[in-house]
Amino acid sequence: MIEICEVGPRDGLQTEATYLSVQQRVDMITKLSKLGFSKIECVSFVREDLVPQMADAEKIIEALPKANGVRYAGLVLSAGGVQRALRLENLTDIHFAIAASDTFNKKNAGRPTWDTLERLSTPIKEALQSGKQVTGIIATAFGCPFEGIIPQDRVLKMIESYINFGNCQICLADTTGLANPKQVQHMIQEVNHHFPDVPISLHFHNTRGLGLANVLAAIQLGVTRFDSSIGGLGGCPYAPLAVGNVCTEDLVNMTEAMGISTGIDLDGLIETAKWTEQQVKRKLDGLVMKAGPIGLRSVPYEKSILNENGKM
Amino acid sequence: MIEICEVGPRDGLQTEATYLSVQQRVDMITKLSKLGFSKIECVSFVREDLVPQMADAEKIIEALPKANGVRYAGLVLSAGGVQRALRLENLTDIHFAIAASDTFNKKNAGRPTWDTLERLSTPIKEALQSGKQVTGIIATAFGCPFEGIIPQDRVLKMIESYINFGNCQICLADTTGLANPKQVQHMIQEVNHHFPDVPISLHFHNTRGLGLANVLAAIQLGVTRFDSSIGGLGGCPYAPLAVGNVCTEDLVNMTEAMGISTGIDLDGLIETAKWTEQQVKRKLDGLVMKAGPIGLRSVPYEKSILNENGKM
Repeated sequence: MIEICEVGPRDGLQTEATYLSVQQRVDMITKLSKLGFSKIECVSFVREDLVPQMADAEKIIEALPKANGVRYAGLVLSAGGVQRALRLENLTDIHFAIAASDTFNKKNAGRPTWDTLERLSTPIKEALQSGKQVTGIIATAFGCPFEGIIPQDRVLKMIESYINFGNCQICLADTTGLANPKQVQHMIQEVNHHFPDVPISLHFHNTRGLGLANVLAAIQLGVTRFDSSIGGLGGCPYAPLAVGNVCTEDLVNMTEAMGISTGIDLDGLIETAKWTEQQVKRKLDGLVMKAGPIGLRSVPYEKSILNENGKM
Repeated sequence: MIEICEVGPRDGLQTEATYLSVQQRVDMITKLSKLGFSKIECVSFVREDLVPQMADAEKIIEALPKANGVRYAGLVLSAGGVQRALRLENLTDIHFAIAASDTFNKKNAGRPTWDTLERLSTPIKEALQSGKQVTGIIATAFGCPFEGIIPQDRVLKMIESYINFGNCQICLADTTGLANPKQVQHMIQEVNHHFPDVPISLHFHNTRGLGLANVLAAIQLGVTRFDSSIGGLGGCPYAPLAVGNVCTEDLVNMTEAMGISTGIDLDGLIETAKWTEQQVKRKLDGLVMKAGPIGLRSVPYEKSILNENGKM
């Protein structure tokens, strides 16, 4: 069984050139909430002037149907963001994101890695005490576009810091698509060795086409929790190098074809991916939304030459 | 060490909406021949009226620089095709393609699988006796869009037929992108069990985004030979369901990042992919040609904020 956190409404939409309205984002998350995800990363508590796509996080969370069976998460990068998140009763999860690369973290949060971890220690503890589930995301865990390879020790030390704050879950993020399957397996072995009881999830981008290969490598070592984004949302026609997360439908199709259940309604997912494509007004990168799932074994252009019994 | 057969000039171009001239195709193959491929599938000996993109196979092979270090292959589906191929001294390899699915083979070659195998037995033996290397491709080996799952026994029986003709190499092709990594590993185990001495190569399409995950699964079981297509060539803007082969640059980038050598010049490959994109006049699906290789760790938009020492 694989559990998926759908991050399209946050990591996906935040780089899209078309900004969705509050109503469109509420509609998107409401549709997603019925498909079997364990968690949806719905919003980001960042500055509206810096990331206008993510404006009005509070309005979104308050307008959503009460979280029931699915968890609603919000991303925070700063102490101010945590305060906003803590005021929202309908938000079940807070995702803290700190980059393992100093350079990347300075660009994203204004300070090097350990400074940010220290400054967020009180807010993280506060979030843990609030009863919300807390996930510590380690961004650029598999490499940084500025610094190159990130020493694994930094990642392990960050995990240690997060779990020293309390009962944090951990997410290792390949923020710019630099991970390869061998490295992923090596990282998982190290993390399992040092922190055998800490639940780990993985967050891959498909920047160089390795998203599903990296997921496969992780599944082979027993990882069961992954982030992904409907339609592979997150590419941007004006920034050809910004490629989205692993595509949710493509991931679900792969695991289901391998006999590993996700609990997700793949047909409903494809329908919602097509709806999302209309909202963002561009062709999304997802492939299964175009070709159909493997399980179907028959796509529209092929159907046309079959008779009603499915034979030629 | 991974060996790649570049199939862009054949499997790629045969579905492109823009037809390349003989000179363009010769230029493309000549560029590719300098990049370190073990083999290039250059042409297809099919009817020009049915597949106009593949017209003038003879002119192409005769205009190429003498095969030196790289092998030139041509695809054949019929006895007539074999006669054309045998007349060309500069062609080193003949690829026979027969589908494991009766339905698919009827559409492709007019007859069910075993009829075609029987009719081609003499031409295959003739090709083997000519001194050219012969590969028996088994199309739809991992599933057929019309018949669904293909019984593994059919694939094994086809391998047996091919090797009974003589010293055939075998290529298992996932013609419409229906394979999944678990199935790939199961197939390889079966084939290795029954035919431990037969060299196997694998040919995946990325129709549902599983191309590289399937390659990874095969590498893990010791397979070292793969087909792929520069730029992921083979999609078609007018047939959104026709998705190309596994992209060569993306494959080379993955294996090199994992420390597995391909002997291929990745920078030269990316340059040639961009050149190919101009020839077919559409944006290709390859991702590494846009984002840059993992090994580089620095892509154009990132370079702009680095100083000349590569630091921020």
